[in-house]
Amino acid sequence: MSVVVQEGDVVLLVSPDRKHYLIRVKAGERWFSHHGSIHHDDLIGRPLGRTLHTEHGYAYLALEPSTHDLIHTLPRTTQIIYSKDAAQIVMRLSLYPGRTLIEAGTGSAGLTLVLARAVMPTGRVYSYETRPESFDMARNNLDELRLLPYVTLHNEDIVGGFHETDVDAVFLDLREPWLFLDQTWAALKGSGFFGALVPTINQVTQLVEGLQSRSFGDVMVEEIIQRPWKIVPARLRPEDRMIAHSAFLVFARKIEAGDESLSWMPDKKRRAYLGKQAMAEREASERGLKVKA
Amino acid sequence: MSVVVQEGDVVLLVSPDRKHYLIRVKAGERWFSHHGSIHHDDLIGRPLGRTLHTEHGYAYLALEPSTHDLIHTLPRTTQIIYSKDAAQIVMRLSLYPGRTLIEAGTGSAGLTLVLARAVMPTGRVYSYETRPESFDMARNNLDELRLLPYVTLHNEDIVGGFHETDVDAVFLDLREPWLFLDQTWAALKGSGFFGALVPTINQVTQLVEGLQSRSFGDVMVEEIIQRPWKIVPARLRPEDRMIAHSAFLVFARKIEAGDESLSWMPDKKRRAYLGKQAMAEREASERGLKVKA
Amino acid sequence: MSVVVQEGDVVLLVSPDRKHYLIRVKAGERWFSHHGSIHHDDLIGRPLGRTLHTEHGYAYLALEPSTHDLIHTLPRTTQIIYSKDAAQIVMRLSLYPGRTLIEAGTGSAGLTLVLARAVMPTGRVYSYETRPESFDMARNNLDELRLLPYVTLHNEDIVGGFHETDVDAVFLDLREPWLFLDQTWAALKGSGFFGALVPTINQVTQLVEGLQSRSFGDVMVEEIIQRPWKIVPARLRPEDRMIAHSAFLVFARKIEAGDESLSWMPDKKRRAYLGKQAMAEREASERGLKVKA
Amino acid sequence: MSVVVQEGDVVLLVSPDRKHYLIRVKAGERWFSHHGSIHHDDLIGRPLGRTLHTEHGYAYLALEPSTHDLIHTLPRTTQIIYSKDAAQIVMRLSLYPGRTLIEAGTGSAGLTLVLARAVMPTGRVYSYETRPESFDMARNNLDELRLLPYVTLHNEDIVGGFHETDVDAVFLDLREPWLFLDQTWAALKGSGFFGALVPTINQVTQLVEGLQSRSFGDVMVEEIIQRPWKIVPARLRPEDRMIAHSAFLVFARKIEAGDESLSWMPDKKRRAYLGKQAMAEREASERGLKVKA
Repeated sequence: MSVVVQEGDVVLLVSPDRKHYLIRVKAGERWFSHHGSIHHDDLIGRPLGRTLHTEHGYAYLALEPSTHDLIHTLPRTTQIIYSKDAAQIVMRLSLYPGRTLIEAGTGSAGLTLVLARAVMPTGRVYSYETRPESFDMARNNLDELRLLPYVTLHNEDIVGGFHETDVDAVFLDLREPWLFLDQTWAALKGSGFFGALVPTINQVTQLVEGLQSRSFGDVMVEEIIQRPWKIVPARLRPEDRMIAHSAFLVFARKIEAGDESLSWMPDKKRRAYLGKQAMAEREASERGLKVKA
Repeated sequence: MSVVVQEGDVVLLVSPDRKHYLIRVKAGERWFSHHGSIHHDDLIGRPLGRTLHTEHGYAYLALEPSTHDLIHTLPRTTQIIYSKDAAQIVMRLSLYPGRTLIEAGTGSAGLTLVLARAVMPTGRVYSYETRPESFDMARNNLDELRLLPYVTLHNEDIVGGFHETDVDAVFLDLREPWLFLDQTWAALKGSGFFGALVPTINQVTQLVEGLQSRSFGDVMVEEIIQRPWKIVPARLRPEDRMIAHSAFLVFARKIEAGDESLSWMPDKKRRAYLGKQAMAEREASERGLKVKA
Repeated sequence: MSVVVQEGDVVLLVSPDRKHYLIRVKAGERWFSHHGSIHHDDLIGRPLGRTLHTEHGYAYLALEPSTHDLIHTLPRTTQIIYSKDAAQIVMRLSLYPGRTLIEAGTGSAGLTLVLARAVMPTGRVYSYETRPESFDMARNNLDELRLLPYVTLHNEDIVGGFHETDVDAVFLDLREPWLFLDQTWAALKGSGFFGALVPTINQVTQLVEGLQSRSFGDVMVEEIIQRPWKIVPARLRPEDRMIAHSAFLVFARKIEAGDESLSWMPDKKRRAYLGKQAMAEREASERGLKVKA
Repeated sequence: MSVVVQEGDVVLLVSPDRKHYLIRVKAGERWFSHHGSIHHDDLIGRPLGRTLHTEHGYAYLALEPSTHDLIHTLPRTTQIIYSKDAAQIVMRLSLYPGRTLIEAGTGSAGLTLVLARAVMPTGRVYSYETRPESFDMARNNLDELRLLPYVTLHNEDIVGGFHETDVDAVFLDLREPWLFLDQTWAALKGSGFFGALVPTINQVTQLVEGLQSRSFGDVMVEEIIQRPWKIVPARLRPEDRMIAHSAFLVFARKIEAGDESLSWMPDKKRRAYLGKQAMAEREASERGLKVKA
């Protein structure tokens, strides 16, 4: 977006009661609300950060939508991704322009938009979604945001694997991500980044078990908690209420298959890298029992 | 980084006791440690995620360094930025390829590296640092990471203002950010994003007062808390200890100067947008007193 | 309360929509709700943990009210005390049967009830409240709960000091507790426990400054955060939302007046024990400057 | 403890490097440290909150030990209970003088001491411990603290059930508390309070399943997080590091056996009260299937 509004820009209108509206600016158009209308021409050629008034004197603040605003304003069929989590996912998967990434599933593309903005213009997001309604909504949303050039959308199941190989990262936003770890391992480049988001701790358990029984290393589980403060300087204190939980984030790295790769880990860390079978054998051997090689 | 290691790539070596070493790969070179050496040629042309052994049989896992790894491994003179905070800053400032951003101060460029990766290749970071040692270290660090092409480093004080105007965002990582809000306002485009990081609540107070007495809107204070979990599936629980605090994050948007821009806010939100002078006047007038227009 | 309900007991009725009602049981009485009535005689002589039905078939679960339930169900004029904070206050002030304690102000006696239950039957709470309506409500509430025998209520200002001396603990639940620290020090026994609850960080600053400029040691500031989990075992996860903040808790110990008491503290801890004057002098002297004795 | 120290009192000595020592005062005795000795007679007849010096000029601050200090200073064989958790347990179990309570297992009596102080002098703690060393240490610790008169210690297994019935509360601090829920239900009075402490989420799952398949209501899972702040008023901020996790707390109430007690709960709450069998049946019936009565 340039310094002044141009035709085709997306603008965020914020009402006095904090309702958010996204509009795409087009010369000659009007935007209608219960409190009157705004002429798009009043926006074009002028900077944002301004208040506009309807013919009834109702005021809207016109802002450039942030990535956070876009996530929260897009039409959606599915559970929203929280921007705090999306931000951490980009960091942990080490996404930046030029990187390639597989995402499954797309949902309404709330996370896809963040991922595409992270890797564009030279990188690419390959995103899989089975449900036709979500697939269509995702495509529309990405198109509205002019992000489709950086995303390949697959309306496909991933049981049979991904089309892409040697990608830098794979992110699974699915109910049962542990079912797709072999496909994930096959699609990742060596040392590639794995991530997943799951709401319940039961899912964490199954996913970590799945990662530890395969050649994934540096397994990590974390929560990102965002604590907002009230901004009255004379009475500074945290907000009364906050989001207590959105999801658990799980991350790992693809490592080469084979036992020898484990020898570098100290004992308590190695447990995390070893599968259950290997752990049982190792513990048995520590107890002086004979186990098969 | 391509799928196999090439000369010039930066590789992360992780020792069994979890020490991290960054090396830049060069044909014919050797990397020496207390436990023996690694030949760079053993890396070239092969994928990462592999274990390499020194001549004494000591093992190192070779990984592609993540953005998080780079932040934590770079030489530095100053307090580290936590990657959880850097991630949220990129989100809140709405950074993506093509955006322009002013940062002050640079420090050892831990945050600069994240910002540059977010806006490159078509955007730009303008970063200010007064201390010569930090300035030199920042330049070396960014050069090592091949990020200098996307960063303009100024070894200058910012009291007199910034060289740039109409930038998308300004981020202040300074002891007294409230002293530079006029310069910040002047450098930002309309609706542009302001951010700052301050460790103490006393600094939050002064910064929020400064923002509220100028034409900044949507002022926001938050903490990002990262809670790690242990990854033993049969005994899943949070880690025993965690980082309790790194810094408070403060964000705002530049809004047009002038009283009329405030009329759109509901009462309890408007307080945050109004300066102290205006608040005193408004409260006086609510109590039935006469105040100047 | 004995194992079966007796006349005079307080019983908690919980409706299907989680509304809570406290009733005092009296033979022959009926309790009326929008959904019909409950005969007190249906409770008398039988254990609790039972479901009772109105004549319209509406069900209420009859439970013994917990201390937590009592706090949250009592009539009140003031901000509620959270039971998580009340619990920690009892712990930090080291309250148990036989201890004596001053509380100011009483409010509607939500905290007083917890304190009285902690120190009864041989200890005593001396509680001060200036507002007549709060004072009356507190007395009624404590009387209903049969706790008045363990509480002395003063409808008085505390500017002139407390009537009691050598008490084990003093707890201030006031807007400006720092104004009453001399009175507090005078009322406490040596080594006695000080506590206060303040909602904002600005109040924390003033209170800690006040404590450090007087003979108080072991100053401590903390928040107690209660994170509830959903209890569906197959989908275990924290609740979506939680209380982000109730108040900051500040604690300290009375120490003997006089400089020599500071000599035992290591340097970084000693700062907390020293008043601002002393700190300024010490820092000046460390910089080699001459300061007045 | 009276206002001045008397023979037999327990006193806490805090060294300049923050080491804590508990001593029982006896006329004519001396307490020896690496830095010299303290004469008990210097304590007797004088208030606490004073600094005492050894013959080498080393200073110790003499304080009355708080309940928190006692927990953390007692000899122990087992994992410590955190005072923040102990405080919440007393609140949730609604303990106060006169109440009766079963605890299993005793461990080194860190929690027992808090429970005994809550219910004495007219109530009683019945505490079970199988390991002879823990049992002996617990008895010694309670004896030292003069709390044995309020505690009945059983060196017994609880598989066969508890000796006591109609107690107000039962608290299980065991590795597998779900194995003892029938014994717990049998020992509790109607509406009685159940509590347990478990470190891992896997234990939470099994315990909640166990409670929901029996006649327990108001099941609750929570964590208590204690966030300490630094106390330098000019640079107020949370401490850098904190305890991220000690244990999950699980609470419930005994309710009368029988289906009718469930009818009062709204749908989403009722799930928590229903056993797995009942839930499966209910869900089947909601799907229009035929299930047995």
